Amino acid sequence: MKKLINAPDAVLADSLKGVAAAHPELTVDHANRIVYRGTPTRAGKVALVSGGGSGHEPLHGGYVGIGMLDAAIAGEIFTSPTPDQIQEATRVADSGAGVLHIVKNYTGDVMNFEMAAELADAETGVTVATVVVDDDVAVEDSTYTAGRRGVGLTVLLEKIAGAAAEEGQDLAAVEAVAKRVNASGRSMGMALTSGTVPAAGRPTFDLPEDSMEIGVGIHGEPGRHRVPLAPAASIARQLVEPVLADLDFTGAPVIAMLNGMGGSPLIELYLMYGEVAALLETAGVTVARTLVGDYITSLDMAGCSLTLLRADDELLRLWDAPVNTPGLRWGV
Amino acid sequence: MKKLINAPDAVLADSLKGVAAAHPELTVDHANRIVYRGTPTRAGKVALVSGGGSGHEPLHGGYVGIGMLDAAIAGEIFTSPTPDQIQEATRVADSGAGVLHIVKNYTGDVMNFEMAAELADAETGVTVATVVVDDDVAVEDSTYTAGRRGVGLTVLLEKIAGAAAEEGQDLAAVEAVAKRVNASGRSMGMALTSGTVPAAGRPTFDLPEDSMEIGVGIHGEPGRHRVPLAPAASIARQLVEPVLADLDFTGAPVIAMLNGMGGSPLIELYLMYGEVAALLETAGVTVARTLVGDYITSLDMAGCSLTLLRADDELLRLWDAPVNTPGLRWGV
Repeated sequence: MKKLINAPDAVLADSLKGVAAAHPELTVDHANRIVYRGTPTRAGKVALVSGGGSGHEPLHGGYVGIGMLDAAIAGEIFTSPTPDQIQEATRVADSGAGVLHIVKNYTGDVMNFEMAAELADAETGVTVATVVVDDDVAVEDSTYTAGRRGVGLTVLLEKIAGAAAEEGQDLAAVEAVAKRVNASGRSMGMALTSGTVPAAGRPTFDLPEDSMEIGVGIHGEPGRHRVPLAPAASIARQLVEPVLADLDFTGAPVIAMLNGMGGSPLIELYLMYGEVAALLETAGVTVARTLVGDYITSLDMAGCSLTLLRADDELLRLWDAPVNTPGLRWGV
Repeated sequence: MKKLINAPDAVLADSLKGVAAAHPELTVDHANRIVYRGTPTRAGKVALVSGGGSGHEPLHGGYVGIGMLDAAIAGEIFTSPTPDQIQEATRVADSGAGVLHIVKNYTGDVMNFEMAAELADAETGVTVATVVVDDDVAVEDSTYTAGRRGVGLTVLLEKIAGAAAEEGQDLAAVEAVAKRVNASGRSMGMALTSGTVPAAGRPTFDLPEDSMEIGVGIHGEPGRHRVPLAPAASIARQLVEPVLADLDFTGAPVIAMLNGMGGSPLIELYLMYGEVAALLETAGVTVARTLVGDYITSLDMAGCSLTLLRADDELLRLWDAPVNTPGLRWGV
């Protein structure tokens, strides 16, 4: 295992030190492993709180800031944060207008966020609404989920719901737009190589030199099938087709994200997006906004994922609204 | 070799298709492999033109846009663009106010940009000034250079000189600020693994599981020494010490970049920045602005580099000015 780390069990704590040093506009609670905005949630603004296992950077800590999250809770690598951590973030982030929990659909995350929401309500009177993201079309159930996994759409949802909260929409409205995003987006990923969890010290799964995993999860969970390594044009088809088969993306402006899994360089991600864009055009899908890069990763896994969101004027408006986070920034 | 590509000899052309598809605000000349802003250089604005071998994305094409470059020329992977390509970009980008060539110090790049500048002057009457970036403290001469290599500082220089040009400074002034940045910045890199050039099909160099290369170049050129794999804290010392030994960074606001080489995930880059920041603080260096992420890469090499720029109020002001490129964006 070759990594830029000190000890395997110190990776998360050490990385949060770097986040704090690099981003004086954020506040890091090192004891509870929570990243907050540098200034408290303003009175009347709904707070957005998300989190999950680490190893998916910049998700979620990199999306804390104006126009996006108010707090992000970091679990250990590929491990849900605890209800205590989530409750603390919820309590601190709330300004009295309520909190939206954005939860990727993994059994541990869903359970712990639910428990934290109940505790927050019972102990501190914080009103919590929850959106569970389940955009991955690869599998119906998986190693760590009942139902579909939550993957790349989380990034788009945090941006759009964040903009709604920033402009003063109330909790019910922010929850509604978040659920509309979840209903309107789909993702599919693939891996060329396995990532390596530092504490394990070796790749999570074996993927021979001539094979790739289609439909892989962001923790290296098995996907739909293992197939021979293929050219980018073929890989693009294997991502685009299941996404388009699952939801109609024609007749609406689409936000597209071609995401890197952490170990694939940008030259390859752009190349993949070129193949994807050509297929989308042939299929009559109109892409209105695009992201290409590492937005939700799986440690050092080589590979990529595609996320499409069927948008409309309102969702595009919220997408284009100013955002100032380490991972997404424009307009400020 | 596991990569998201079609054929090894089509990587650059295919990747530029993706850039064009993802960034409708840019114009890609596919025949000449030049990325331009979508609108011509406005009359009176000095044009900034850079370029070099591909494989370092987002450098240079990802830095074309408002507040940064007007054109970027893409050579084949790790290969200088030709004088013809550079001359074409120079001719098209010029608005009559002259062109600044930003050239990383590699023998082929320097020679071809120089030839293109002479041709541009003789054939189309374009006035060209040139800044050669040579910030790498690792080695005095190297495989591909006489003198120091140009690496990470190029990103900071393109941003700052771009802002000077955007606000209407003339060619002499933009050249002067670019040269001031080059004189005030230093870099040092390291590799955990070698990148793989697609056409070669195998890693550029052998780096055993228990070793790392300190002072590596962005084409996998040998660095200062090959040493045993070490914890991040030790790696940080081996980057910070030679940089601080080469230039005094105390008593001024410093812009720091902890850059990923392409194959190292963000969680590790933040961890490295945490170590670097602690060392800088101990050394009395005040970091005013920070970038952590993949800004100048070496294909899929795992590793990182550190760049420090000794700034002042004027350089910080230009750094903070609005920029809208695929690779750096704020304020717009």
